[in-house]
Amino acid sequence: MAKSDVKKVVLAYSGGLDTSIILKWLQTTYGCEVVTFTADLGQGEELEPARHKALLLGIKPENIFIEDLREEFVRDYVFPMFRANAVYEGQYLLGTSIARPLIGKKQIEIAEKVGADAVCHGATGKGNDQVRFELAYYALKPDVKVIAPWREWDLTSRTKLIEFAEQHQIPIAKDKRGEAPFSTDANLLHTSSEGKVLEDPSQDVPDYVYSRTVNPEDAPDRATFITVDFERGDAVAVDGVKLTPAALLAKLNDLGRENGIGRLDLVENRYVGMKSRGMYETPGGTILLAAHRGIEQITLDRGAAHLKDELMPKYAELVYNGFWFAPEREMLQAAIDKSQEFVTGRVRLKLYKGNVSVVGRESPYSLYDQELVTFEEGAVAYDQHDAQGFIKLNALRLRTLGQRKKRMGK
Amino acid sequence: MAKSDVKKVVLAYSGGLDTSIILKWLQTTYGCEVVTFTADLGQGEELEPARHKALLLGIKPENIFIEDLREEFVRDYVFPMFRANAVYEGQYLLGTSIARPLIGKKQIEIAEKVGADAVCHGATGKGNDQVRFELAYYALKPDVKVIAPWREWDLTSRTKLIEFAEQHQIPIAKDKRGEAPFSTDANLLHTSSEGKVLEDPSQDVPDYVYSRTVNPEDAPDRATFITVDFERGDAVAVDGVKLTPAALLAKLNDLGRENGIGRLDLVENRYVGMKSRGMYETPGGTILLAAHRGIEQITLDRGAAHLKDELMPKYAELVYNGFWFAPEREMLQAAIDKSQEFVTGRVRLKLYKGNVSVVGRESPYSLYDQELVTFEEGAVAYDQHDAQGFIKLNALRLRTLGQRKKRMGK
Amino acid sequence: MAKSDVKKVVLAYSGGLDTSIILKWLQTTYGCEVVTFTADLGQGEELEPARHKALLLGIKPENIFIEDLREEFVRDYVFPMFRANAVYEGQYLLGTSIARPLIGKKQIEIAEKVGADAVCHGATGKGNDQVRFELAYYALKPDVKVIAPWREWDLTSRTKLIEFAEQHQIPIAKDKRGEAPFSTDANLLHTSSEGKVLEDPSQDVPDYVYSRTVNPEDAPDRATFITVDFERGDAVAVDGVKLTPAALLAKLNDLGRENGIGRLDLVENRYVGMKSRGMYETPGGTILLAAHRGIEQITLDRGAAHLKDELMPKYAELVYNGFWFAPEREMLQAAIDKSQEFVTGRVRLKLYKGNVSVVGRESPYSLYDQELVTFEEGAVAYDQHDAQGFIKLNALRLRTLGQRKKRMGK
Amino acid sequence: MAKSDVKKVVLAYSGGLDTSIILKWLQTTYGCEVVTFTADLGQGEELEPARHKALLLGIKPENIFIEDLREEFVRDYVFPMFRANAVYEGQYLLGTSIARPLIGKKQIEIAEKVGADAVCHGATGKGNDQVRFELAYYALKPDVKVIAPWREWDLTSRTKLIEFAEQHQIPIAKDKRGEAPFSTDANLLHTSSEGKVLEDPSQDVPDYVYSRTVNPEDAPDRATFITVDFERGDAVAVDGVKLTPAALLAKLNDLGRENGIGRLDLVENRYVGMKSRGMYETPGGTILLAAHRGIEQITLDRGAAHLKDELMPKYAELVYNGFWFAPEREMLQAAIDKSQEFVTGRVRLKLYKGNVSVVGRESPYSLYDQELVTFEEGAVAYDQHDAQGFIKLNALRLRTLGQRKKRMGK
Repeated sequence: MAKSDVKKVVLAYSGGLDTSIILKWLQTTYGCEVVTFTADLGQGEELEPARHKALLLGIKPENIFIEDLREEFVRDYVFPMFRANAVYEGQYLLGTSIARPLIGKKQIEIAEKVGADAVCHGATGKGNDQVRFELAYYALKPDVKVIAPWREWDLTSRTKLIEFAEQHQIPIAKDKRGEAPFSTDANLLHTSSEGKVLEDPSQDVPDYVYSRTVNPEDAPDRATFITVDFERGDAVAVDGVKLTPAALLAKLNDLGRENGIGRLDLVENRYVGMKSRGMYETPGGTILLAAHRGIEQITLDRGAAHLKDELMPKYAELVYNGFWFAPEREMLQAAIDKSQEFVTGRVRLKLYKGNVSVVGRESPYSLYDQELVTFEEGAVAYDQHDAQGFIKLNALRLRTLGQRKKRMGK
Repeated sequence: MAKSDVKKVVLAYSGGLDTSIILKWLQTTYGCEVVTFTADLGQGEELEPARHKALLLGIKPENIFIEDLREEFVRDYVFPMFRANAVYEGQYLLGTSIARPLIGKKQIEIAEKVGADAVCHGATGKGNDQVRFELAYYALKPDVKVIAPWREWDLTSRTKLIEFAEQHQIPIAKDKRGEAPFSTDANLLHTSSEGKVLEDPSQDVPDYVYSRTVNPEDAPDRATFITVDFERGDAVAVDGVKLTPAALLAKLNDLGRENGIGRLDLVENRYVGMKSRGMYETPGGTILLAAHRGIEQITLDRGAAHLKDELMPKYAELVYNGFWFAPEREMLQAAIDKSQEFVTGRVRLKLYKGNVSVVGRESPYSLYDQELVTFEEGAVAYDQHDAQGFIKLNALRLRTLGQRKKRMGK
Repeated sequence: MAKSDVKKVVLAYSGGLDTSIILKWLQTTYGCEVVTFTADLGQGEELEPARHKALLLGIKPENIFIEDLREEFVRDYVFPMFRANAVYEGQYLLGTSIARPLIGKKQIEIAEKVGADAVCHGATGKGNDQVRFELAYYALKPDVKVIAPWREWDLTSRTKLIEFAEQHQIPIAKDKRGEAPFSTDANLLHTSSEGKVLEDPSQDVPDYVYSRTVNPEDAPDRATFITVDFERGDAVAVDGVKLTPAALLAKLNDLGRENGIGRLDLVENRYVGMKSRGMYETPGGTILLAAHRGIEQITLDRGAAHLKDELMPKYAELVYNGFWFAPEREMLQAAIDKSQEFVTGRVRLKLYKGNVSVVGRESPYSLYDQELVTFEEGAVAYDQHDAQGFIKLNALRLRTLGQRKKRMGK
Repeated sequence: MAKSDVKKVVLAYSGGLDTSIILKWLQTTYGCEVVTFTADLGQGEELEPARHKALLLGIKPENIFIEDLREEFVRDYVFPMFRANAVYEGQYLLGTSIARPLIGKKQIEIAEKVGADAVCHGATGKGNDQVRFELAYYALKPDVKVIAPWREWDLTSRTKLIEFAEQHQIPIAKDKRGEAPFSTDANLLHTSSEGKVLEDPSQDVPDYVYSRTVNPEDAPDRATFITVDFERGDAVAVDGVKLTPAALLAKLNDLGRENGIGRLDLVENRYVGMKSRGMYETPGGTILLAAHRGIEQITLDRGAAHLKDELMPKYAELVYNGFWFAPEREMLQAAIDKSQEFVTGRVRLKLYKGNVSVVGRESPYSLYDQELVTFEEGAVAYDQHDAQGFIKLNALRLRTLGQRKKRMGK
């Protein structure tokens, strides 16, 4: 792409040093108008400093977009994903993966609004996030131009970056001058850390890497018991108090943090082909997953439950790889959502030093119900004698196989 | 089946009251010769009393079979299943399910040896175990006659059972006269409890139900760190000490028990059609699963890992439903075993008050290796510019879809 | 079930000899009021004789229900199934399987209307249809009583049946006195034949068994070319003429019949456990499947198409086994229907002596479109250089595996 | 990659104009030693002219490798794939896809032997074949350099290619001067055609594109009946005559060709992201697939058969995408091969004007056997009364769901 082709670009801008460098680099290299988009996804940072800094770097006020996406994020991305009990490679709750499509979608919406022809993100060239951003961009605006500075520029070392910042009067916080011992991504669902001190998978994660949860050892010596209420597969209340999606997840985050819940040390397979080691803290999400599985236990039929379990790995892989806006993710979502109609009720959980356990579940729609097993006037639906026929017909093909083996002398 | 048809029956005999009643009932109702089979699967009970009791009940010495199956159980059943990371309905480690096929197989082997035409088990008519036993019987000896007393007799209450026992001089331990508050199954992999006090899934499991693990609250205040070594997908050593399969699982059980690991309170879907609530304690198995996933993280390729994850729910369902000896389980096992060739190495785990976490992994076969990512003379295998092509081709179909939407004005 | 328990039963009544015998047997054995339900699913028989015969056998006029279900059958059962491209065991188009749930549903609706407590079908005890009927009954009216005469009565030979008919003044057509050389089921989608002369799977199907299609050898020597139009996954027109679902399928049946299309000689696996050999004629359905796949080729995205292909065997198995009203079938349907939004367009097919081939497809929603591959101002969406990055990142894990092998000297 | 880095390259060389141009281009552009590899995969061309031409173009005799791979191709690639009944997107028999890994593997073997550091293929930058070749290369020799001229050079038109050829004294056959109306790939399994005259998917394939089969209209007016014998899932004889794998496939090709069998007009989804329209002729393979499904019908258990059907789309996708040497393909192959132990017997087929139908199957290992259904002393294994229990337990969860709906007033 010829650099002069780009007229106006919407940059996913955090206000931090790296995206500020990108901002300036876009101005100087592409010579294009830069529109910044800063989103609150619950990463726990103030947004107004980003506005201030954008202005300082020469962005026109009308080109600065700041939005609080926390409710949309949890309601339309996190919750649908949790309906699927999605877990990547058996363990990862997909906290970073699920945020990228939303940011990408907002950038595209702004691009359409301001007439920008390009979008830009700050993800590196070795990770999954570049894929997730760009698949979202391309799906929603097929003719968009995508600028991925980390794959393009020659600022290939910390020193060069700092030099560039200094040359362009970009303010540099003191602790940003050296290499960070690890890098971090955070939103309302999780905080992830990777790189440097985490790169040897045989070595434990240093204590100082954790930021969202207390050590299980430091958590209270007494268990905390809570309830989570669900309606149609989504959590709606904690301890009986109705909460909006984002407020609910924030509440679970607090509970999880205090009780040392949701830490994960993982070596995972990136979509771009290599293995990487990461540390995740997903305090509220870990509780939410346990709670959702708890309410499904009594409200979901076996056929539906097993189909969900079979579809889940594929669903999780799609989210991880960045295919949120792909038809096959939407198909799976349709199947999953169909199953959640009666996933309504209350789960009681015990939180204790890193553990979250379901200790009770009840629902007006429970399929586990003494009354239910009885159908009419004392007649019991389950006749033990039926088991014989059930077994014998299920065994028939195995017996036939056994006969063949015998016949063959095997 | 006409009762006079049965000449000789091999009974799965625990030596306890219930199977002693069955033994006597077989003699009196079927008038057939009874052969007893008592197996040690690590349930933690002496076997010799069973021999004594069988003799007492009139079984000929040559008709009493007692066998220590612990090593075979772990080596040929538990370990292959753990290669699959098998978990039923997201949580249950299949401790009961995996033991039944082996018991069934041994009964059939004895039946072939002693020329018995029938086999008999003590599983009830509402549970999964009857299915698991009988599918094993039928698969391995298609013409066998199966006697399932609980589906046949009229001893439908505790009182009638006790009466029958008294009539037939069967010794009754004092604590067996009343209804048990819950029923239990145990082997080297787990202890399960269900029934009565556990039947209300909204109520917590009473403390006295647990027998294999200490309360997390009562576990040591300091974490225990251990290593588990794997070879080709199977655990072979703990803390560097080589152990046989059964000894290794016993060791992990000790470690899990002390640290309050492996408790599970679950409402699950039975194969026979209803939901049931159970409590499981799988101390060693819970550690083993975490460890196995840990070593797979660095030794298993992504394609293999994801395929395993997709196949797992089906595999677990087959084991749960009793289809261990079915061709489709064997096919899945072949695929899984194929993946384990290089699943060799050491995992370090932290055990702490109910938690088990992988904190380190290393392997001579690691696919996560700094050196590996570099291929030759300093040339790096991963070129960031490749990411652009990767993304653009993956995006192509999404762009085409996006164009269609735009064309359609959607 | 005590026979005196049944007060009123809704019988699936064809008007033929067998269900007439059942009708009388219900009256004499159960002493209950019998309600007959006769449905037109396109089996090609007059329904009024069934009314006449029911009256003759003592059924009250208000207890005789006759309904033309052809449109509902094709619209709500056949078409949704074809959206899935459902084929059982690679070949069978599920013509019988798909009709049973609808008949069952109608029986239950009538039972609710007339206050009947029981339903009855004429399917044998060795087949799949009993399962399909009864799963529908139980799903829709959990407390219903089910009477399955062929599993209950002692009319176990043709002779006994004829005797019973004669005793009860049931008219017997001459050709019904002996054993039929094969048995048949027919509806608008297909005709199936099985039994007797078909039981040796090494022997060809005798010519006289075919009734719905001409021999390919006797079909016209010139190909017939037709078009089928689709809207959102359902066929809506043949040769440009809009037709209702049933009329459309009938039209395709005519075309298929004349051109010798849709014969299938199959050994299949029944849900009840044994293999059976059947012969199917599905003339219109065979054309419809080819046409649907044809239009999907250009309107369905790859991700959606591959997911559909992966889900299909499970979907087909559910339909075959009788789980139409199960949540997991509805979940899969939701996923499939989601994919069909743009499956709209025209397919041209060549019909020739047993062959049906797609020879052209076009659609306003085509994803195969020269224009589409180009996005704007002459910029081409596909850059060949992207392929290198695509391949290299896809190869990365394979290279890493290759390095490991080399390191290991393998 | 710096061009001077390449010392010696192994080129997949057909002897035709295009790969001759590549050969010369490698010499002139990379200045490296060129090793040619020409393989007979049954494409129906003489190989010696390729040797002659290579010599003419300055290749040293010891650098010319020519190998007849037909037996290896069919035995180790085609047959394993047919064990899986692999069909891509419901229809394509993967004739091109399956040949690429073998060619790639041989190039790498030669590279290892002659000490070459690079390999080169003549596949274009828009197709799947480049992926298939290169994934094979990278999997088998991770440090290999890959040269893909069509993605690199500036010979972007027919005119430029011809000019280059003329400049370098490469002989040009007269019919190669202009653009071909379509391009073709052929091997023992199939011939594929695509491009130009085939690019409009609404237009029929012109008659002159077909080269491997007669028109069904021109095929004999009488059916041909043949038998195919299988051993452990692989075809071993036609009409009772034992044949080697390649000879057998050639024989089936002859039979298919004469009877107009195996034509396919398809719009498919390429791995690189776009749809393409192709025409395939797979005469023998089409017969082989039908025959294999036929023998599986009586020798494969239902559980195994259904699992195979569920795994097949993924297997086919892997082969299509070029992941033959990936662990997940090998895992699936292990599962599939496990199922084929008893897939032995004889299938009788009718070939008639484009149709291939199974009309008989028999096997010493048949699971469809009158005797088999009976187990001992006249006792029948199947008791119709068992069906009731089977249905009632399968219905239990549906009844529970029905009760819930009723309770909820839905």
